[in-house]
Amino acid sequence: MGIAVIYGSSRKNGNSDQLANLLVEEFEADKIHLSDYKIEPIRDYRHSEKGPYPDDDYHQVLERVLAQDVLVFTTPIYWYGASGLTKTFIDRWSQSLRENREEFLAKFATKTAWVIGIGADEPQIKGLSLVQQFQHIFDFTGTKFAGYVLGKGNEPGDILQDAGALAAVEDIRSKWRL
Amino acid sequence: MGIAVIYGSSRKNGNSDQLANLLVEEFEADKIHLSDYKIEPIRDYRHSEKGPYPDDDYHQVLERVLAQDVLVFTTPIYWYGASGLTKTFIDRWSQSLRENREEFLAKFATKTAWVIGIGADEPQIKGLSLVQQFQHIFDFTGTKFAGYVLGKGNEPGDILQDAGALAAVEDIRSKWRL
Amino acid sequence: MGIAVIYGSSRKNGNSDQLANLLVEEFEADKIHLSDYKIEPIRDYRHSEKGPYPDDDYHQVLERVLAQDVLVFTTPIYWYGASGLTKTFIDRWSQSLRENREEFLAKFATKTAWVIGIGADEPQIKGLSLVQQFQHIFDFTGTKFAGYVLGKGNEPGDILQDAGALAAVEDIRSKWRL
Amino acid sequence: MGIAVIYGSSRKNGNSDQLANLLVEEFEADKIHLSDYKIEPIRDYRHSEKGPYPDDDYHQVLERVLAQDVLVFTTPIYWYGASGLTKTFIDRWSQSLRENREEFLAKFATKTAWVIGIGADEPQIKGLSLVQQFQHIFDFTGTKFAGYVLGKGNEPGDILQDAGALAAVEDIRSKWRL
Repeated sequence: MGIAVIYGSSRKNGNSDQLANLLVEEFEADKIHLSDYKIEPIRDYRHSEKGPYPDDDYHQVLERVLAQDVLVFTTPIYWYGASGLTKTFIDRWSQSLRENREEFLAKFATKTAWVIGIGADEPQIKGLSLVQQFQHIFDFTGTKFAGYVLGKGNEPGDILQDAGALAAVEDIRSKWRL
Repeated sequence: MGIAVIYGSSRKNGNSDQLANLLVEEFEADKIHLSDYKIEPIRDYRHSEKGPYPDDDYHQVLERVLAQDVLVFTTPIYWYGASGLTKTFIDRWSQSLRENREEFLAKFATKTAWVIGIGADEPQIKGLSLVQQFQHIFDFTGTKFAGYVLGKGNEPGDILQDAGALAAVEDIRSKWRL
Repeated sequence: MGIAVIYGSSRKNGNSDQLANLLVEEFEADKIHLSDYKIEPIRDYRHSEKGPYPDDDYHQVLERVLAQDVLVFTTPIYWYGASGLTKTFIDRWSQSLRENREEFLAKFATKTAWVIGIGADEPQIKGLSLVQQFQHIFDFTGTKFAGYVLGKGNEPGDILQDAGALAAVEDIRSKWRL
Repeated sequence: MGIAVIYGSSRKNGNSDQLANLLVEEFEADKIHLSDYKIEPIRDYRHSEKGPYPDDDYHQVLERVLAQDVLVFTTPIYWYGASGLTKTFIDRWSQSLRENREEFLAKFATKTAWVIGIGADEPQIKGLSLVQQFQHIFDFTGTKFAGYVLGKGNEPGDILQDAGALAAVEDIRSKWRL
């Protein structure tokens, strides 16, 4: 079981990073910080001649994601949704659908995904639309949506005081140990 | 009543653009296509010394948004949420909160907002998390969330065949005419 | 195309009744007012010997529902969800699953459903969990969820002033006329 | 801190009962099984002369609920929502609003509520509309919505194998111990 963590924060070691790091600390994981890469917004050629896609790090990042079986999307909850970094990366999947739809979907259909969202403003309630969005995404890609953790964090380190989030993380780890 | 339309598509004249253009065709509106501007992802300094923010078009775009009373956020539904362009712009509002929280919130509290989301995959159902996210956003900013239109479009021009969306647009226009 | 309207209000001719009546006024429809029938809460025998089910009007009402192709569930939005009358009727479907699962599901899989929910407190926003719940229900039964109308009504007759709801109703009728 | 548990299952000792019992086992709690009482559907007199309300156990049950500070609503997830028993009880709150609005709201505004929903079909995802509905309910009544547990159970006793639900319950108990 290979794990990729896709970090959507613009900051290293913020609350969402910390919780994801705790989750994988005893496992090998490919840690992919989206903020380390240049990933431009999708260009939408669905209804036109396929033009050039941005010449950036998208394919390289996607390759690393697709190389693992278990995907952990971890994002701060910005404005009640995934961070722009996370969303912009996912939007680019439409490029892959255009370039090689069958292969892209076949690969995602073999994967299991978890979502971590950390926010300051009632994340367990106001983060639910984030979860529902990921549910639709994984329904589309055929990916097994194994679960999610919505945790509370505002000041750095807060998340390590959120007993519910820590328990949820421990629950996932105990499943992975099997 | 001044209107700003904030277009989140990467394409000009796609379905979401078309529906928004129809909505405002008999009104004066400032048409702001986010794809015409350079708006980088937020840098999150909430918990650190405030560092430099990206030197890009964010403030210029925000000024135009804040200059109007009625805001129409129109976005293609990419992966069951607002486009990355739209989300990245909204994420940057956190910068404004940091720079001048009271003024930013006071201005948004005077505005009325509408949301248009156009998608291909059951938008009336699978677009609901987009609506709920905007609800939380406008609750936070104190903006009146006047309503939304979820329309169906895949091929260019489809949206002009979506009788439900056209009726919803006409309903908004009849309110604006008063 | 046979239509059944399942009215979930405890009042005749309230706002949800009125909008549904307008929807079907030029069509033949079997109008089923749940408040005219005695339908008790489900007894849950999923995990025990099947005991006696309530001796009430459930089967009679279900027969009438299943006799039609197009189902319109119309309910006042009570406490941000379907009325207890509506929910209690749907809960009883578990009895039918126990009694004759295959036949029950096979019949629902041929039907098309619409949902009308009328509420006083921001129904377009706060009624969305009602819509999502019906989405899950129809996913389970294999029923085509054709669409929904969320309308605003407080005082009797209000709904006939809700231009958006009227337009949505007209949109459904124009589809039915084809 | 007085606790009331409001059980919405039609069965004693099913999965939702079991998890709630575990939650309160070391605390004193008033255990209110709705299935032990006769609570009829609301009669909607909002727009008519106030007529007679059902002569049943509603007021007696409500009194017991209002006598405690902490409310735990525990329900099996039937058809992706609260049970009909639970919903019918809540619908009747409209009667109390009619009878004594200020007092009813003033009392609920002092309370803290938790929700437990146990379902068989992806409760963490498909139970989210239940959570959102309760959020709107508690927003209306001014009740603090402290959190929720969505657990998985099909066969009796399953819930005691759901490590995530157990961890969430332990998390609530540790808060109560303080």
